[in-house]
Amino acid sequence: MTYEIPLREIQFVLHELLQVPAMLEACGQPELDAETIDQVLAAAGQFASEVIAPLNAPGDEHGCSMPSAGVVQTPPGFKKAYDEFTKNGWPGLSCSPEFGGQGFPSVVANAVYEVFGGANMAWASYPGMSHATYVNVAANGSEDQKALYLPKIASGEWAGTMCLTEPNAGTDLGLMRTRAVAQADGSYSITGSKIFISGGEQDLTENIMHLVLARTPDAPPGVKGISLFIVPKFLPDASGAAGARNAVVCGSIEHKLGIHGNSTCTINFDGATGWLLGAPNKGLAGMFVQMNHMRVLVGTIAIGLMEAAYQKALAYAKERLQGRASGVRSSGDVADRIIGHADVRRMLLTQKANIEGARALALWTSQLSDVQRLHPDPATRNETAELLGLLTPLVKALSSDLAVECTLLAMQVFGGHGYIRENGVEQHLRDVRIIGLYEGTNGVQAMDLLGRKVLADQGRQMGVFLDMAGAFAETCGPREPMREFAQPLAKLVTDIRQLTGELVAASAQDPHAAGAAAAPYLRLVGHLALGWSWARMAEVALKHSGSTDPIYASKIATARFYFHACCPRRRRCAARSGPARPR
Amino acid sequence: MTYEIPLREIQFVLHELLQVPAMLEACGQPELDAETIDQVLAAAGQFASEVIAPLNAPGDEHGCSMPSAGVVQTPPGFKKAYDEFTKNGWPGLSCSPEFGGQGFPSVVANAVYEVFGGANMAWASYPGMSHATYVNVAANGSEDQKALYLPKIASGEWAGTMCLTEPNAGTDLGLMRTRAVAQADGSYSITGSKIFISGGEQDLTENIMHLVLARTPDAPPGVKGISLFIVPKFLPDASGAAGARNAVVCGSIEHKLGIHGNSTCTINFDGATGWLLGAPNKGLAGMFVQMNHMRVLVGTIAIGLMEAAYQKALAYAKERLQGRASGVRSSGDVADRIIGHADVRRMLLTQKANIEGARALALWTSQLSDVQRLHPDPATRNETAELLGLLTPLVKALSSDLAVECTLLAMQVFGGHGYIRENGVEQHLRDVRIIGLYEGTNGVQAMDLLGRKVLADQGRQMGVFLDMAGAFAETCGPREPMREFAQPLAKLVTDIRQLTGELVAASAQDPHAAGAAAAPYLRLVGHLALGWSWARMAEVALKHSGSTDPIYASKIATARFYFHACCPRRRRCAARSGPARPR
Repeated sequence: MTYEIPLREIQFVLHELLQVPAMLEACGQPELDAETIDQVLAAAGQFASEVIAPLNAPGDEHGCSMPSAGVVQTPPGFKKAYDEFTKNGWPGLSCSPEFGGQGFPSVVANAVYEVFGGANMAWASYPGMSHATYVNVAANGSEDQKALYLPKIASGEWAGTMCLTEPNAGTDLGLMRTRAVAQADGSYSITGSKIFISGGEQDLTENIMHLVLARTPDAPPGVKGISLFIVPKFLPDASGAAGARNAVVCGSIEHKLGIHGNSTCTINFDGATGWLLGAPNKGLAGMFVQMNHMRVLVGTIAIGLMEAAYQKALAYAKERLQGRASGVRSSGDVADRIIGHADVRRMLLTQKANIEGARALALWTSQLSDVQRLHPDPATRNETAELLGLLTPLVKALSSDLAVECTLLAMQVFGGHGYIRENGVEQHLRDVRIIGLYEGTNGVQAMDLLGRKVLADQGRQMGVFLDMAGAFAETCGPREPMREFAQPLAKLVTDIRQLTGELVAASAQDPHAAGAAAAPYLRLVGHLALGWSWARMAEVALKHSGSTDPIYASKIATARFYFHACCPRRRRCAARSGPARPR
Repeated sequence: MTYEIPLREIQFVLHELLQVPAMLEACGQPELDAETIDQVLAAAGQFASEVIAPLNAPGDEHGCSMPSAGVVQTPPGFKKAYDEFTKNGWPGLSCSPEFGGQGFPSVVANAVYEVFGGANMAWASYPGMSHATYVNVAANGSEDQKALYLPKIASGEWAGTMCLTEPNAGTDLGLMRTRAVAQADGSYSITGSKIFISGGEQDLTENIMHLVLARTPDAPPGVKGISLFIVPKFLPDASGAAGARNAVVCGSIEHKLGIHGNSTCTINFDGATGWLLGAPNKGLAGMFVQMNHMRVLVGTIAIGLMEAAYQKALAYAKERLQGRASGVRSSGDVADRIIGHADVRRMLLTQKANIEGARALALWTSQLSDVQRLHPDPATRNETAELLGLLTPLVKALSSDLAVECTLLAMQVFGGHGYIRENGVEQHLRDVRIIGLYEGTNGVQAMDLLGRKVLADQGRQMGVFLDMAGAFAETCGPREPMREFAQPLAKLVTDIRQLTGELVAASAQDPHAAGAAAAPYLRLVGHLALGWSWARMAEVALKHSGSTDPIYASKIATARFYFHACCPRRRRCAARSGPARPR
């Protein structure tokens, strides 16, 4: 079966939960309406189902190859799909019109990338990474650099990469050794080896703009001596077109668990010409604009893969006849459809509750990045930036952990057939597993959340977040139909508030306290964030209790399942089986 | 790095926790002492490290192939390793001396299979499955059948398979269509197709004894009309040697997520000659002797894979220099070893606590199968059989779920390097994932536990189990050093006792109640079983508090970590980081 965009689900989040047009209007951009967004979603869904989803399994099977030294071939069909992608203007979706883009907000672009990722993560990661370099150059580049590079990225003619990791420097970028020596003409000569470079070499674009972290000879040691450089594969000529080949060569590609269609390269810089991007020795902060963008993006793509696996599992459960499930007998058949079995429903509903909750959270976070960038009020921009900083590691780590758990469950619905390659669900597990490991491992995300975001200001910013969730629970709690969601939400807020205080105190005593608690703390905050998302979705749905659109009843039932069966408050097994049909 | 037998850990369980020689003496078999067991373990460890572990990654890379129709080639080296295996008598380890075996108890054989599985699951699954067919024929065969087949299996000359699944009949074996028609000579003509047959065809042995479920024409519908047949690939001649080729052909092999070196075959029976094994229409019960043996075996093998992944992660964490971990600085190095980071320790200790707890549980369960078979007192045999029935689905499902979780954590310790094939840890995840899906999915195990073992007798047998655990907690609780383990154990007993009562009541009202609760119920009982195992191990270790053997302090620290960080009672994040070095 092919992947299909969960159109109504995404519409529910964008239009009804987040009210994106109203947000844009508040940000002074009233021209984008729901209808236009729907057109984008429909086109994205069509491209996903018809063009890139059919390349997903063959791309996995074929993988990338190196037919000759330094040359990387993507799987058959990838280039043709990429050409169609650029022809239709997708690379510029959320780029500025100033540089040839269409100016859609990130919240729409990320919704689209969930869809592209769900259809074909290996393929979608090429343009996804390129757009992240656009974000980087747009934030850190000089006017000349922006004018030179951004139109090429926005058109999709050129791709981009982020070159951080070295064999001995992963999480600890302070250990990196790549050198950048200033040249008389203002450029730098870059020498060193980078590993794990996604899309570091490929046959999709005429040029690749590598964004490279390196040290100048006089730089201070550690992370305070890292600068950021633009190092194109082909040097732009006087007209800005790809000119002479630069001394940048792909040395090898990795053999990996998954995303076989996305090249993971060792890139060797051998006195390559590069230009400083942003201020010297401020490269890590500069790169973090891109990194934070990537963290939300890959967290969103993880949701796409969960969704893809869920679609397969749901279809299989509706079709596979096996055993007798009391109460839902399919008359005439030799057995009942396995979706009738309560344990299968439990597995499907767990996926559904996590997917939809994570989607609401990721798109809300994406929307915050728009508000933070666009809102006219500086105080709102600052507050939003703080909240975005808190949620970014959460979206990345929570979504990717849930995605592994949920693709495992999707496989489980298939039984032994889930282990067989041709059923496709095992590929989703292999592909999505990378998301917990790259762009900072999920342990790094957890330390970012607890160490840098929570403990660094003694829990103040986390307190703001908890106040927001607590206020929501308090406001809607007295209304009867919302009570069942507001009460456990309020309990989570209280628990996390107390725990946060304990951790602030403990970390003052024990240097290991934060590290030991970080991962379970992130997960607990994740439950709150999902619970809050579910309570908000239930509130929206309750306003439509008379509607014939089945999504509203589905939202309420799934919110109930989330609080009943997924939340850590549960101390008992679920003795209720949930609604008979997850969708 | 190569796999190494966790010798001291297994010795601790066999000799100190389970006191295997004393158990055997109580069963009238006093001749087996600890020294002999140690010799077996040492030889198994050597065979695992030197012979089959080196074949693990190449076997995964190469996989099985079909060079011509019906012919299956195992990966290079598999046959040579198998020949050495048989030459050294391993296939007969726990077979009866009457049939050429060495008569070791299952508890020792399963400990050995943990090691073989950890070194190379794909390879070890061939003899593992063969031995399960030995168990089947030994239980269900006529004297003639035993005399004909068992020496061939015990010597390893012949292999065996279990042929249950058909395309439309997996969990629901009542749907199977393979036919068996009685012939004038007392044999049966078997026609049908079986899928997912592990080792269904291979190039390791001169013959394969297929044990096949099929229906006779007059059989009642459903599971009450299934009979069990011996269908050899080559028909035994008058001397018992492999003679004429039978009409049994491998149609294809599956392409799978993992265990690439273990052939998973479609086997077509086209009027093949077979012989009834056991009583007509009692085939499912007959096959379940083998199935239950397999469930404990594969649960044990899952522990081997967790162990293998943990060994890799631990070695990497002791070697990889990255970041500064307060308090444990490696002086002189550019960074600290990542084992110094509390989050890495958390991941390693979680693996360690689950591996060692699951090992104690699986080997205890294996020991129960020996007691149930050998004990002179019929009442003891009966009680033990009931307990074994309760623990069998638990060992299978809990170990395999934990194995997926722990291999995921082992990958996480490696960061991005865990996603790269050459580091080997991703193979363990792919391989071990099958265990939750085959021999009855883990959902089937959960329904077996809750539906057939707990609810069927209104919780009586579960009550016996809870009484045992509760009595242990009560006995050792008053002693100060045991209190920290006895208290949470007693709490778990109380919680599960109450929950069991609730589920007995709920399932009388709601036909879905058992299905909806089964999987989380199994997990909760699993926590109790692991917690009990840890409390028992702590009790043993506390007797050696003055010892210089580091295992005793390790056991106490890990038991503490288990109850502190792994048990579901935890409502707070761990603000303590555990011991600095997991092993």
